[in-house]
Amino acid sequence: MRHFVDIADHDASELTSVLDLAEQFSNVLERDVPKVPALRGQTIVLAFFEDSTRTRTSFDLAARRLSADVINFSAGSSSLKKGESLRDTIETISAMGIDGLVVRHASSGAATQIRQWTDASIINAGDGWHQHPTQAMLDAFTIRRRLGSLEGKHILLCGDVQHSRVARSDVQAFTALGASVTIVGPRTLLPPTLEGWPVEVATSLDEVIGEVDVAYFLRIQKERMTEALLPSDREYRREFGLTVDRAHKLPAGAVIMHPGPMNRGVEIDPEVADDPRCAVLEQVANGVAVRMAILYRVLGPGQFDEIDGGARS
Amino acid sequence: MRHFVDIADHDASELTSVLDLAEQFSNVLERDVPKVPALRGQTIVLAFFEDSTRTRTSFDLAARRLSADVINFSAGSSSLKKGESLRDTIETISAMGIDGLVVRHASSGAATQIRQWTDASIINAGDGWHQHPTQAMLDAFTIRRRLGSLEGKHILLCGDVQHSRVARSDVQAFTALGASVTIVGPRTLLPPTLEGWPVEVATSLDEVIGEVDVAYFLRIQKERMTEALLPSDREYRREFGLTVDRAHKLPAGAVIMHPGPMNRGVEIDPEVADDPRCAVLEQVANGVAVRMAILYRVLGPGQFDEIDGGARS
Amino acid sequence: MRHFVDIADHDASELTSVLDLAEQFSNVLERDVPKVPALRGQTIVLAFFEDSTRTRTSFDLAARRLSADVINFSAGSSSLKKGESLRDTIETISAMGIDGLVVRHASSGAATQIRQWTDASIINAGDGWHQHPTQAMLDAFTIRRRLGSLEGKHILLCGDVQHSRVARSDVQAFTALGASVTIVGPRTLLPPTLEGWPVEVATSLDEVIGEVDVAYFLRIQKERMTEALLPSDREYRREFGLTVDRAHKLPAGAVIMHPGPMNRGVEIDPEVADDPRCAVLEQVANGVAVRMAILYRVLGPGQFDEIDGGARS
Repeated sequence: MRHFVDIADHDASELTSVLDLAEQFSNVLERDVPKVPALRGQTIVLAFFEDSTRTRTSFDLAARRLSADVINFSAGSSSLKKGESLRDTIETISAMGIDGLVVRHASSGAATQIRQWTDASIINAGDGWHQHPTQAMLDAFTIRRRLGSLEGKHILLCGDVQHSRVARSDVQAFTALGASVTIVGPRTLLPPTLEGWPVEVATSLDEVIGEVDVAYFLRIQKERMTEALLPSDREYRREFGLTVDRAHKLPAGAVIMHPGPMNRGVEIDPEVADDPRCAVLEQVANGVAVRMAILYRVLGPGQFDEIDGGARS
Repeated sequence: MRHFVDIADHDASELTSVLDLAEQFSNVLERDVPKVPALRGQTIVLAFFEDSTRTRTSFDLAARRLSADVINFSAGSSSLKKGESLRDTIETISAMGIDGLVVRHASSGAATQIRQWTDASIINAGDGWHQHPTQAMLDAFTIRRRLGSLEGKHILLCGDVQHSRVARSDVQAFTALGASVTIVGPRTLLPPTLEGWPVEVATSLDEVIGEVDVAYFLRIQKERMTEALLPSDREYRREFGLTVDRAHKLPAGAVIMHPGPMNRGVEIDPEVADDPRCAVLEQVANGVAVRMAILYRVLGPGQFDEIDGGARS
Repeated sequence: MRHFVDIADHDASELTSVLDLAEQFSNVLERDVPKVPALRGQTIVLAFFEDSTRTRTSFDLAARRLSADVINFSAGSSSLKKGESLRDTIETISAMGIDGLVVRHASSGAATQIRQWTDASIINAGDGWHQHPTQAMLDAFTIRRRLGSLEGKHILLCGDVQHSRVARSDVQAFTALGASVTIVGPRTLLPPTLEGWPVEVATSLDEVIGEVDVAYFLRIQKERMTEALLPSDREYRREFGLTVDRAHKLPAGAVIMHPGPMNRGVEIDPEVADDPRCAVLEQVANGVAVRMAILYRVLGPGQFDEIDGGARS
């Protein structure tokens, strides 16, 4: 595995091997000194051309726990302001001799394009509406830990599916790993056609909430409201929010998920966020182990061995 | 000691033990390689929701000299802009598995509140007008180094006492360690009542300047002038500034202090800033050793041993 | 060598010794783990008072590959906004006990001035129009690698020589190392007198392009156009750009250089940027090795020994 840019590039066995490796790193994170020498001497640049706290911090931690050197590249202070092209920026960073490049960019397809301009391994940390594959892997990991497997599970994705890179990547990863996916949301925010979306569409949240194994709520983007694609907060909550009432209808063993940050009282009621079925903070915690696994797969020397911490011999 | 949020949480013997430990780290900082493995494998997040250079850089250095991993969390690029609550932000950072959280925030009480939302140790790097306890400790350390002890010393705090978190923490720390404190400043900038302030109030700087062991000048906030709480720079200097004339009246063995950055020619005349009694740069230097001591107290494995560098066995 | 602030401070033998050392670090960078313990325990602050990606990232990488601790000081979030003077800022950072200070500042002479306020070693990363000495050294290194030596070579600098710190430093370094330099550019952007500029002036690019060993194109600053010192992009390219036609006239063994970021289609045509004679990405790559050499010269314990990685014994 040279890059991790798009879930569709990897088959079920590759995705499963990443999840298995993430289990090993999860063990490492339980130790007193939660670090391994696996990527010592390697340099990973975090190039975030769009704001992010969670994802950037999660990658930063993951890289350091593998003993890599981490360089933060902030678009704000970059030559891009001087009119340099993205290509020149990437070629320049790359010429400095780096090993991995974690990229977030507002344009769909940016990570795929960047792959052509550098010898470094590219990890896609979100490109426009297109893909957020490390989020999909941490989501799959969280479901597997809670339910044992994704095989045969029924997963509901609720909200603005059309503009969500999380939804796009999740659907690919979940179905590749054997789950079935149903989507629901405001008509204006669902994909206009289901081509490329191996999903069912429900007509209302209430119709399906009682029979799913996982209920995944997507973050609403407030700017969709000004575009008149979305009703008000209150109406959204009434139709598509996980209210206390709906949480009662959700099966006892089900998992509640959200990529964060939550709009409490809109997608999920505050009381429900503290429900034991809610896995939101587990998603965050698992993110570090899963990103360690992905970084190790694309940059590491081979099989990870917990005894020697994955160091190059 | 699990947290370091408020001077009032700690008794004199705890405060003294921090100062004693800081002496040990001061020795470490004299070495060719001024580092110890004490906090290896631990992760400290610097979450500054308010701008700062001095304090953030000082903590950054302190943490690295203890071999901790340091993550800078910058509020500007954070999900807070997306409307995420402070609680969700803290819970998210915390779920990633960090050990210590150094927090600066514009709201008084923020650090105390945050303590309830995380298992990480909280170090308060300044919360509104409320507390700046690590500054108070480095001030106490600087006085102890200069004068041997705070016991029985007479310390003057001059300036905007009412809006100063430095003043609030200093008064608590200095009096707990046996000093007596006198305050002086524009009437509009003194506390409206002395309840909770174990201090004397002087009517003018000239009345007391000749008889103090320490003269501590607080930074004036220019915005207080637009609020009409403060006279002009020139008038302020005349009444409350350490002019060359007043410096002559100050005893020969006294210590001149300021938390920085100074408004030269307002709180302190430029010539006086270079007086050998002026300890401003010592305060900065001592800050690193004192913050190492505080980080080690809340995160370290027990007694620090200079021989083994405080590493976990 | 205590500081590296101005090429004029160093004679040919010192400059050559830096280039020789950079060759050794170039070898280090080829290794699987491209790191040496040479500056372990030393702290280098990157104080960039002006935006930069390339130079800051290059220094950051260079310092880490020498195992130094690197602190990023960002002017935006600093006390300078509170009106603190540059001197107080430098004295404060310096009091925290740092070893090296890499400074970029908009004022010519800033790095020289800063040297008087601190015991730390100063490395000038660009001061106004004045000097950019580490760029000159990586340029010299790149030429030496391509052509064997600078001795007797004919180097052309084309563009806005007057406002370019790169040009100023390059001319000094190249001539000190035995090359001859010719400059060419719009009349309004050449030095008004050649005093202190040991160069020839060509009347047109076409006159000299056929007979140089190195053709170095300076970046144009778009703001010079609003100042009416520069014609339009199109006119600039016609007179001073390395077009495909001109590239044909350039000797086969010549080297094409640019400090980056390029305005493609203005200073250099897009097709020419991919010409094998174009060394732009080599300049970037060499920058890391050259900056390691400079940091090691000013901060390291003596001769660098590849066997023990230059660590202090």
